[in-house]
Amino acid sequence: MLSEKLLKQIDFIKEIDKIKYIQRKTKLFNSDRNENDAEHSWHLAVMAIVLAEHSDSDIDVLKVVKMVLIHDVVEIDAGDTFIYDTQKNHSNTDEERLAANRIFGLLPQEQAEEFIKIWEEFEAGETNEAKFAKAMDRLEPLLQNTSNNGGTWSEFGVTYDKVYEKKIAIKEGSSSIWNYAEKLIDDSVQKGILKK
Amino acid sequence: MLSEKLLKQIDFIKEIDKIKYIQRKTKLFNSDRNENDAEHSWHLAVMAIVLAEHSDSDIDVLKVVKMVLIHDVVEIDAGDTFIYDTQKNHSNTDEERLAANRIFGLLPQEQAEEFIKIWEEFEAGETNEAKFAKAMDRLEPLLQNTSNNGGTWSEFGVTYDKVYEKKIAIKEGSSSIWNYAEKLIDDSVQKGILKK
Repeated sequence: MLSEKLLKQIDFIKEIDKIKYIQRKTKLFNSDRNENDAEHSWHLAVMAIVLAEHSDSDIDVLKVVKMVLIHDVVEIDAGDTFIYDTQKNHSNTDEERLAANRIFGLLPQEQAEEFIKIWEEFEAGETNEAKFAKAMDRLEPLLQNTSNNGGTWSEFGVTYDKVYEKKIAIKEGSSSIWNYAEKLIDDSVQKGILKK
Repeated sequence: MLSEKLLKQIDFIKEIDKIKYIQRKTKLFNSDRNENDAEHSWHLAVMAIVLAEHSDSDIDVLKVVKMVLIHDVVEIDAGDTFIYDTQKNHSNTDEERLAANRIFGLLPQEQAEEFIKIWEEFEAGETNEAKFAKAMDRLEPLLQNTSNNGGTWSEFGVTYDKVYEKKIAIKEGSSSIWNYAEKLIDDSVQKGILKK
């Protein structure tokens, strides 16, 4: 007898394959190829593991990894919202909440509830784990844009103030990573790839 | 002052971006688009978290996740070897070992050693964590090929015996997932998408 739980889990595993088609605005390192959500989530997970020691607070690394692995699953239904989009708020839209309920809802009930909770915790950004996960989510495109002569900053005319306002979230997770990130932002202005 | 450790970790994070360009033979679900190593590794990590309860032995889930997230990093230098390749042995080639030393060697020494050890443990496939990680690595392409009318089995003329011989590794990690996998293989023969 096949367990009903396993069959539900397999359905979820098949459904989330779709995030491999969701293109972000950001390009791969030194590249003009857009990154997709699966690649992005993979990179954040490795970053969280590699950089965990720089967290300013004690963190449950597995929880951070879970957060970053699944944080974009809702985009299967809701689509990717560019972080510098001025028309649409990125966080926790009704559309994203419906998507979370539908997609995580494919899992066995208890697990569905656990995943929705982890996703909500990430979105709220209040716990140590969520802060560190968000720091990873802000750091990756910063590294990408600086490797791509400004990347989405140049492409969409995003200026220093906007970048600083979004990236300072890194400080909530790690002061040492923020030191590094702030220097990268300043260097980008110096190099002329980020406009003040 | 920026920490030297952090700078090394950032170098590693940049270098591993390259796995996003490494194409596997297997296609995405219901698709003719090849999967890349980053997408594959992301999927295995989510699968390991979702399916952990089916492991026959106690496992450290974070360790399994680390294994699957980094198991293909060596392919940046060594390339992807098709699991049914008859010319080239998949496991632990000298080329892969050199790659592990170079790429993980970008990390601070202690962390480099930890990552190489985790990669070796995965490759050896002897611990509970490695067995479960390998089970995920065998299950994903099985799900993909069955969603793609035989996928790489049809494309490369791989027959039942070869598939069975590779997939039975799933049993080492989880008897309940193996029950499911074995049924999928049998169903594939019935449907004519896998030749006996």
